[in-house]
Amino acid sequence: MAPLGHLVGTRWTGFCFRLRSYRFCTGNIGQMNRRAAELRVERTVQRIAQVIRVKPEKRDEYVELHRAVPEPVLARLRASHVANYSIHLLRDRLFSYFEYHGDDLGADLRAVAADPATQEWWKLTDPCQERVPEAAPGEWWAAAERVFLME
Amino acid sequence: MAPLGHLVGTRWTGFCFRLRSYRFCTGNIGQMNRRAAELRVERTVQRIAQVIRVKPEKRDEYVELHRAVPEPVLARLRASHVANYSIHLLRDRLFSYFEYHGDDLGADLRAVAADPATQEWWKLTDPCQERVPEAAPGEWWAAAERVFLME
Repeated sequence: MAPLGHLVGTRWTGFCFRLRSYRFCTGNIGQMNRRAAELRVERTVQRIAQVIRVKPEKRDEYVELHRAVPEPVLARLRASHVANYSIHLLRDRLFSYFEYHGDDLGADLRAVAADPATQEWWKLTDPCQERVPEAAPGEWWAAAERVFLME
Repeated sequence: MAPLGHLVGTRWTGFCFRLRSYRFCTGNIGQMNRRAAELRVERTVQRIAQVIRVKPEKRDEYVELHRAVPEPVLARLRASHVANYSIHLLRDRLFSYFEYHGDDLGADLRAVAADPATQEWWKLTDPCQERVPEAAPGEWWAAAERVFLME
C-alpha cells in the first residue's frame, strides 16, 4: 500500500475504485479538527496460487532443498515484487501461494526465469516435479483461479 | 507482530528463536546514539493451506456463493484471528490459504464451527464439496504441510 498523505490516526470517509493493479480512494479525512479532501492511491496485491506434482521418490529431496533456498534466488524473487511466498505439500501435490506487488507479472517472472542463480536452482528442483494433467499448455506450475478473498 | 519497545528507525543486532507461536529476539539496538539491550517478542503467523474437492456440477454454485459471503461469517473468522484468507480453484480442487494470528488454532476453529451464521453458511457450501482421498480421518478440508516460506 502506498497511501498519499499522512493517514495514520485519521478517519476516512469516501469511496474507492480499482483500475489495473491500483486502488483509488477519494473522500474526506477528519484529522485533528482539520478536514480535507484527499485522493489515496494504493497498489492492489495479486494473490497467485499454483499447483504442481512432486514425484513421490523425490519428495524428501524436494523438501530438503527448500530448507535452504539460496539467498540470490530469494533476492531475485523479491526484486520481482514477490512476497509472502509459501509452498505446501499434500501427498504428491505442491501448492504455492505468493503475493505480487508489481505492475507487470509477466515481465517480472521473465526476469526471474532469466536469472542465472534461479536457473541453477531450477536444475535441482525441476527433476523433482511433474506438470499436473490439468495444467494449461506451456504451464509448468498450473495456475489456479482465485474465487474468494477476505483481506 | 507486537514488538516491545520503540523499534522504528532502529538497527537491530542480535539473535532470534521461536517457541510455540512466538518469536523471541534479543540483542543490541543502536538508536539516536543510545544503545540498549532489549528483548523483542513477536507473535509468529501460521500459514494454513487446505484442500477439498468441489463437485463438478456444483462448481458454478460454489463460486457464485463466494462472491457474497455473509458478513457475520467473515466477522467470526476475524474474531478467531484468521486473516488474508483466499480460496483458489483448479478444475475440481479448491485450495484455501489463510494466516492465523492467534495462540490456539483448535479453540479458534471450534468457535467458528459453533457459530450459528457459519453453520447456516456451511449448509450451503458443504453440499458443493467432497473430501479428497488423501484427507486424514475426520478431516473435511485436508491440511497440507508447509515446506517453504519466504516472508
